[in-house]
Amino acid sequence: MKYLLLAIFLLPLARPATAQTPPPPNIILFLVDDMGWQDCSVPFAAQKTKWNELYRTPNMERLAAQGMKFTQAFANQNCTPTRVSLMTGMNVVQHGVTSWIFAKDREPEDQSRQRLQSPAWRLNGMATTPGDTNAVYATPLPVLLRQAGYTTIHVGKAHLGARGTPAADPGQLGFDRNIGGSHIGHPASYLGIDNFGNRPPNGPDSRAVPGLDEYWGKDIFLTEALTQKALHTVDSVVQAGRPFFLQLAHYAVHLPFIADKRYVQRYYAMGMDSTEALYAALLEGMDKSLGDVMDYLEKRGLTKNTLLVFMSDNGGLSDVRRGAANLNQYNSPARSGKTSGYDGGLRIPMLAQWPGHIAAGSTCGNNVIVEDFFATCLALSGLKKPAMVQRVDGQSWLPLFAGKKAYTNRPITWHYPHQHMGRHADVYPFSAIRQGSWKLLYNHTTQGLELYNTLTDVGEQNNLAASEPKRVKQMAAQLGKALRSSPVGMPVDKATKVGMGYPDGVVNKK
Amino acid sequence: MKYLLLAIFLLPLARPATAQTPPPPNIILFLVDDMGWQDCSVPFAAQKTKWNELYRTPNMERLAAQGMKFTQAFANQNCTPTRVSLMTGMNVVQHGVTSWIFAKDREPEDQSRQRLQSPAWRLNGMATTPGDTNAVYATPLPVLLRQAGYTTIHVGKAHLGARGTPAADPGQLGFDRNIGGSHIGHPASYLGIDNFGNRPPNGPDSRAVPGLDEYWGKDIFLTEALTQKALHTVDSVVQAGRPFFLQLAHYAVHLPFIADKRYVQRYYAMGMDSTEALYAALLEGMDKSLGDVMDYLEKRGLTKNTLLVFMSDNGGLSDVRRGAANLNQYNSPARSGKTSGYDGGLRIPMLAQWPGHIAAGSTCGNNVIVEDFFATCLALSGLKKPAMVQRVDGQSWLPLFAGKKAYTNRPITWHYPHQHMGRHADVYPFSAIRQGSWKLLYNHTTQGLELYNTLTDVGEQNNLAASEPKRVKQMAAQLGKALRSSPVGMPVDKATKVGMGYPDGVVNKK
Repeated sequence: MKYLLLAIFLLPLARPATAQTPPPPNIILFLVDDMGWQDCSVPFAAQKTKWNELYRTPNMERLAAQGMKFTQAFANQNCTPTRVSLMTGMNVVQHGVTSWIFAKDREPEDQSRQRLQSPAWRLNGMATTPGDTNAVYATPLPVLLRQAGYTTIHVGKAHLGARGTPAADPGQLGFDRNIGGSHIGHPASYLGIDNFGNRPPNGPDSRAVPGLDEYWGKDIFLTEALTQKALHTVDSVVQAGRPFFLQLAHYAVHLPFIADKRYVQRYYAMGMDSTEALYAALLEGMDKSLGDVMDYLEKRGLTKNTLLVFMSDNGGLSDVRRGAANLNQYNSPARSGKTSGYDGGLRIPMLAQWPGHIAAGSTCGNNVIVEDFFATCLALSGLKKPAMVQRVDGQSWLPLFAGKKAYTNRPITWHYPHQHMGRHADVYPFSAIRQGSWKLLYNHTTQGLELYNTLTDVGEQNNLAASEPKRVKQMAAQLGKALRSSPVGMPVDKATKVGMGYPDGVVNKK
Repeated sequence: MKYLLLAIFLLPLARPATAQTPPPPNIILFLVDDMGWQDCSVPFAAQKTKWNELYRTPNMERLAAQGMKFTQAFANQNCTPTRVSLMTGMNVVQHGVTSWIFAKDREPEDQSRQRLQSPAWRLNGMATTPGDTNAVYATPLPVLLRQAGYTTIHVGKAHLGARGTPAADPGQLGFDRNIGGSHIGHPASYLGIDNFGNRPPNGPDSRAVPGLDEYWGKDIFLTEALTQKALHTVDSVVQAGRPFFLQLAHYAVHLPFIADKRYVQRYYAMGMDSTEALYAALLEGMDKSLGDVMDYLEKRGLTKNTLLVFMSDNGGLSDVRRGAANLNQYNSPARSGKTSGYDGGLRIPMLAQWPGHIAAGSTCGNNVIVEDFFATCLALSGLKKPAMVQRVDGQSWLPLFAGKKAYTNRPITWHYPHQHMGRHADVYPFSAIRQGSWKLLYNHTTQGLELYNTLTDVGEQNNLAASEPKRVKQMAAQLGKALRSSPVGMPVDKATKVGMGYPDGVVNKK
């Protein structure tokens, strides 16, 4: 009955492809939470690192061998901004959801003791209708893919709309099915025996994972439960001849680090620090899920007609919550981590497989960013005139899949006018622009500008701002122009009430 | 003005001592949360252990040198049962608050997947008026001490009444001042820069520490803030010639383990596991607080007229959340830890100082249990006929302080008809009785009885039940009798609907 209702619901949707055209490929976005670009056995830096030796992700290796590895892939500094970019195709500067979100009209983090006052921003996340100035109104990717005939499935962490807003429910954003997604950004528990956090006392801030009741009390890890549910849903919901879009967005490897007992003993036995062992086990469980997805595609003969994209939503955690031994080094050779404007906070591991369209074992060194995923899906969908309200900033990866170099010089921008609780000196409110291998980083608090050539200086150690004034001026101008078009302004110094100024203004003052 | 009001409030209270009698001593209960008996540099076992070498608690050493060390001190298996015993003088079997509490009329832990159904128990904690069958109505210690002329101050974790009940507020239980206490059992954050968890989004289940607003945004650890506040309050509230009762009940060293940066680097530098280093730093910060209290007493010339008691509220955490290297060994030589009926869950570190009444550097090997604290305070107070509703199970420590052996053979009982989430085999619903060094442990699930002689077998490895049937029968009869008088019955097997039976019934069946 449930499936019948779904079928009726899907029936009136236009299928743009004629009977002669093969349907567009299935699309799977395998999205990991808080995973750093070094947190796997696939090397994404120029050289293999100690991290690549430490972590075990054999299925990522398998995916890399069968597809394309992206060595210059970027996200935003924390999760909701990236997720909104994926769903809207907009750069964070344009969509204005500049930090993580939680409850309607409420700042998720305390601002009272910060020196800078954050500007008004879209702290409700996405909106399904216009009118809420605290949210970005845009046509979500699954709505468009449904127009193109796709069955759309969300599994796992959503974190796209604040609690108390319609967009908190992925079902309101165009997903035919939602399994386990809501406003929460991390799970209260990864354990089935803990009912994934659904246990009394259970207030609205509890971060219990919704749904998944069938696994409550069972000895199963959340990553495994979501995987089983995702593949079962694809199997039962998707109809022959109709493509599907599956967003399998794991809660892993975000805090809280809770032992995945299938894997953790190995890392304990290696003598690894307990926090780091828990993290390594979360990673291996995530990788097992990837392997299950790949196995499923093979078993069903779907591999050839499925684009499978693997990515993380921001840089890896690098503060003490991940263990103390390698503090602020967890993304090395990149500098710092999650919520920082240095590349440790922005670089992500990314892989893509689509046999016949992506060469096995290939590598792409083009800059790519999360909103490109949207543009790529749109290009694949076959939709000629998608009915959408937003302007898309992302660029399709199809030329890159085909092995071409493309838009190598396009600018990518970031905007994070917030002070995260993390108190490492590398974590501060910032805006940034990258063009090719050049990166200009603007510190809102100090109004300082740093320029790095990340090709020769991946660790962002040598600030070239003083020796490259012309480049600084050009990039600051470009960044300033982008920021002026943003719905989110600059922070204000609480003491002086003076706004922190755009980067080009700062350059010109000097 | 605040102090004037307080003075007016205190004025009508009867002072039993005449002008000739010196006032009873001040009483400070320094209560630590979740600290195991081995988590300090003071040895409480027969031999010094590796734990005593690992942790640094110089002020506990100082207290032990100036006072009495109790090597056979016991609490209940988790926190609220112990705290209610401290405030009522009742054994857990009698007060019926058999596990931790949270919100009114709500089971704090999910029971749906357990084999046994817990009996009705007093899940609201304490009550200030009769009528709530889910709570124990008793006259709290501070009410009685106020009758005796004491100024009563609570600082830190209370966890005595469920959210939504009057007893959630220590001010309703007879404390003239309450700083930082509420229904919560652990803090959302130990950090002042996190406002101790008071930050949006902040629902009723947030576990934000109440009050302490003056420290919000400041770079101060909760343990330090509570200590400063406690000593400042004693200084400003207590009047000359009036004794005070201070319950300084630290949230430390309970989860979440958050770095106390004053101390953690030392442990990191030792190469300690990150989880364990955080725990060791929590301990050292707690010990610093103890030192501050002792320094304060000395500075004000109060040491001589103050009974200072140090204890923990249950055995130390021994599961993976404390680190993986020493799983289930953290209380060794005692077996298991918090929520277990083995001694690792029940043994606590305890020290007492009162110059002139307690010999410096002395040791007491008598069995003592938390409810004795109540009886001791009552004996000290000078109250001849305290107006109270409950029967006191605890025994005064005054003879022990004086170096006598006392009530060496009295039975001590425990009752925990609950299945904690912790899934180690040593953690199960149990009742137990101890008499001298003999301990009978009754496993509700298996209906098995274990008998240990903890004098020769501190680790409870050799079950003597088969070779000592007479002793088993006698102790089971005594335990059964106590349990039959409890407001909390035995659990029921959900499948068979059969109650799990009292231990003496089980013995007699055999």
